[in-house]
Amino acid sequence: MKIINIMVGGPASEIPDLRQYTSAEISWIGVDRGAKRLLDHGIVPTVAMGDFDSLSKEELAHLKTKVADVREFPAEKDETDTEIGLSWAMEQNPDKIRIFGATGGRLDHLLANLMMLTKPRFLNAVPVVEMIDRYNYIKMYTPGSYTIEKLPDKKYVAFTTMKDVTGLTLKGFAYPLENATYPVGSALSSNEFVEKKGEFSFKSGMILLTQSND
Amino acid sequence: MKIINIMVGGPASEIPDLRQYTSAEISWIGVDRGAKRLLDHGIVPTVAMGDFDSLSKEELAHLKTKVADVREFPAEKDETDTEIGLSWAMEQNPDKIRIFGATGGRLDHLLANLMMLTKPRFLNAVPVVEMIDRYNYIKMYTPGSYTIEKLPDKKYVAFTTMKDVTGLTLKGFAYPLENATYPVGSALSSNEFVEKKGEFSFKSGMILLTQSND
Repeated sequence: MKIINIMVGGPASEIPDLRQYTSAEISWIGVDRGAKRLLDHGIVPTVAMGDFDSLSKEELAHLKTKVADVREFPAEKDETDTEIGLSWAMEQNPDKIRIFGATGGRLDHLLANLMMLTKPRFLNAVPVVEMIDRYNYIKMYTPGSYTIEKLPDKKYVAFTTMKDVTGLTLKGFAYPLENATYPVGSALSSNEFVEKKGEFSFKSGMILLTQSND
Repeated sequence: MKIINIMVGGPASEIPDLRQYTSAEISWIGVDRGAKRLLDHGIVPTVAMGDFDSLSKEELAHLKTKVADVREFPAEKDETDTEIGLSWAMEQNPDKIRIFGATGGRLDHLLANLMMLTKPRFLNAVPVVEMIDRYNYIKMYTPGSYTIEKLPDKKYVAFTTMKDVTGLTLKGFAYPLENATYPVGSALSSNEFVEKKGEFSFKSGMILLTQSND
């Protein structure tokens, strides 16, 4: 299984313990300040990319001595830093992409990161991308039927509609649903798994699933 | 000016310095764990409400000795804790409602809090509600023309569409717009004020405005 982890520049306080997500065959991308953060964690990314305007000249020079492939982009660009990292990662055809550092701090960054996967050009990325922080595991879904496992360290599960959703059925959760319809922007929060697995399906739209701790 | 501040139960790490938001004529509502947090900050709320399942029996008993009006709601309910607090606050006809503790930690709570104001029954609340955390000032807008001031401690401004938006014009920002159209879920992030004030207007839809620090 080919896994690429991306670290973007959100606050350090939201980053989970990275050791469980690191192994010899997993490659890391550091985006902007996320590249420095990886070095701070003792992880040398395969590629560092971004406008690096959040780093000092000295920090950027140090980054270049450590990372073989550093790609600088202009600060004024149409893509967000996360989108640039995700585009590069998708070109490597991975089975899974985990994004860290996408939450906390600036809310406009968080919203842009969450909404990125609703863009048509990232449709192929939806099935492989997870976002992970200290409190949340986040995954986006397109229409279909899914069986998901409860993460052992998470208590709550929530379904947020990122587009108008029809035919939503939830089984194996404390609050089940049968063929329900919800407009975009509905936050079905604070649900819980009844057993270790749950099933959900929907006919149209897009769903952001979160498993969270308090 | 009648101001009501609501503290909900998000993580303490996201709460800004509350002293600048506190004065004799401002009343506080503590929702669930937010009620305990207010006491921890030396603030006695006028009302405490929630299911209080995040408090121990001892903490709830202590709360009742300090707060004159404690309202307990069942844990299984259709409204979120924040919605219960907001409904009560709206009944007092305030000029402004500030919500603290609505961000950080559980992402499903944050999304539910942001999307709350898109619900028709909270339409009257949109002009008076602000959400504030350590990094972000958040306000929702219905169609119209607005002049907004740069907050002195914030660098970035962003416009996120909570419904399909038409006729969006931005003046006085680094990235201006003229009569633009964006579908729901567009995150126009990382804009900046050129001067101390900026103007924006739109014809239909709903916009979430954030002013943020890194």
